[in-house]
Amino acid sequence: MSDFSIPVRVYIEDTDAGGIVYHANYLKFIERARTEFLRAKGFDKAALFDDELMFVVSAMNVKYSHAAKLGEELMVTARVSALARVSMEFEQRVFFRDRELFSASVQIACVDRSTHKPKRIPATLISALAGLSEKES
Amino acid sequence: MSDFSIPVRVYIEDTDAGGIVYHANYLKFIERARTEFLRAKGFDKAALFDDELMFVVSAMNVKYSHAAKLGEELMVTARVSALARVSMEFEQRVFFRDRELFSASVQIACVDRSTHKPKRIPATLISALAGLSEKES
Amino acid sequence: MSDFSIPVRVYIEDTDAGGIVYHANYLKFIERARTEFLRAKGFDKAALFDDELMFVVSAMNVKYSHAAKLGEELMVTARVSALARVSMEFEQRVFFRDRELFSASVQIACVDRSTHKPKRIPATLISALAGLSEKES
Amino acid sequence: MSDFSIPVRVYIEDTDAGGIVYHANYLKFIERARTEFLRAKGFDKAALFDDELMFVVSAMNVKYSHAAKLGEELMVTARVSALARVSMEFEQRVFFRDRELFSASVQIACVDRSTHKPKRIPATLISALAGLSEKES
Repeated sequence: MSDFSIPVRVYIEDTDAGGIVYHANYLKFIERARTEFLRAKGFDKAALFDDELMFVVSAMNVKYSHAAKLGEELMVTARVSALARVSMEFEQRVFFRDRELFSASVQIACVDRSTHKPKRIPATLISALAGLSEKES
Repeated sequence: MSDFSIPVRVYIEDTDAGGIVYHANYLKFIERARTEFLRAKGFDKAALFDDELMFVVSAMNVKYSHAAKLGEELMVTARVSALARVSMEFEQRVFFRDRELFSASVQIACVDRSTHKPKRIPATLISALAGLSEKES
Repeated sequence: MSDFSIPVRVYIEDTDAGGIVYHANYLKFIERARTEFLRAKGFDKAALFDDELMFVVSAMNVKYSHAAKLGEELMVTARVSALARVSMEFEQRVFFRDRELFSASVQIACVDRSTHKPKRIPATLISALAGLSEKES
Repeated sequence: MSDFSIPVRVYIEDTDAGGIVYHANYLKFIERARTEFLRAKGFDKAALFDDELMFVVSAMNVKYSHAAKLGEELMVTARVSALARVSMEFEQRVFFRDRELFSASVQIACVDRSTHKPKRIPATLISALAGLSEKES
């Protein structure tokens, strides 16, 4: 597993009365990983906001295999699997130790912050991510 | 649109710094609709818990078309699209007025609350839902 | 109990692994009640936003007496207990049937949306709330 | 500031349409700090759960001074300010750089996980915390 990854600790805030992580919260975990991935590439969400850009989730395909529990330290990965002019796709996973708990394919659209219309992903970000893809393949 | 539906008001808690509903929160909205749908059929989540059963989301396919905003009253639908012995599938949508904002296909598994192993959906629930499917088709 | 009140159903999203409502979520419940209270007076949060105003919580004193549980329908109250030029105070409670689960005293400040500096509460809102106070006392 | 502290990054999930951290989320941040504080003392929340114990918030006094924003890395502190047989009190703060954004005094009760009745804080935890207090004073 050479994907970009961050550790995420499961706190009581993340759980539900089933004694496991509430299913919608995995979406928060994987977004944190995307955010840190972009930050590691030099792109800060707040800074993108200032440029009137916003990345929004446009579609997602997710699979829950095993439940995460209170106190566990999870590993959350992020990898760019497709890159276009106004959108990109991430493949993401959540692990506890060697066990995959959750996987997701996430479509991200770049939009204007005010109008919500599609907008080109900044060229600098494209090249940072494209460079990465080349290096990886 | 004759699907079961509930109104959901967008509060500040549901929004994010993009000025729109935070993407993971649509999953909460549609779960509320599933819960109320089951309650309307006479099945209470807390009661199912007492019987050592738990319904968990096992997979989801979601599409975000338009953003919901603060103060809007949304309409959230739930319809059973498939029913098996240990799982079922819901088709769900979120509308603001006549505009569809979000749609989801949600796989739900019935599991034992302690072991998380698949368990048969209670016969009473199956017949309540099956009856419904027949009536609808 | 003649305070303004709204019903709030406890969903799985509201609970934690302790099997009860997660403590921070009562703050969401009481904010929903404040929002609906203001809406009932003709003041919409989104509309206030458009006027470059924002109400923010500046201080809170809260007491948890009993835990709310999955599936319960709670009653959440809101009452203005003090009203000044740039701030107001709410007294709020959460009940399940006749039992008080939670109470809070909430300080709200009116601020400029961009600078976050204190700003006068709109006169129309002051009179709506003042009229209310008079009628109540 | 020699209190125990953890860094907390502000993600989009933590913000609201006001462009700042949603007020109830500071309660999550300070609970993470209490959890890590206890973990650093050798006490794990999940483990306490297994012993049929649960720590619940019984009262809180909070003050919001300045708003945290998207992308900021906050510092969140936790310090035990009082310790009794079935309860304890934490003093907590949230900083961005040198600026205090939020402070809280939090009453925590130790209760039986099933009955929610007060229960003695485990002696081992008391001594770990008492030892700490002595060392600090």
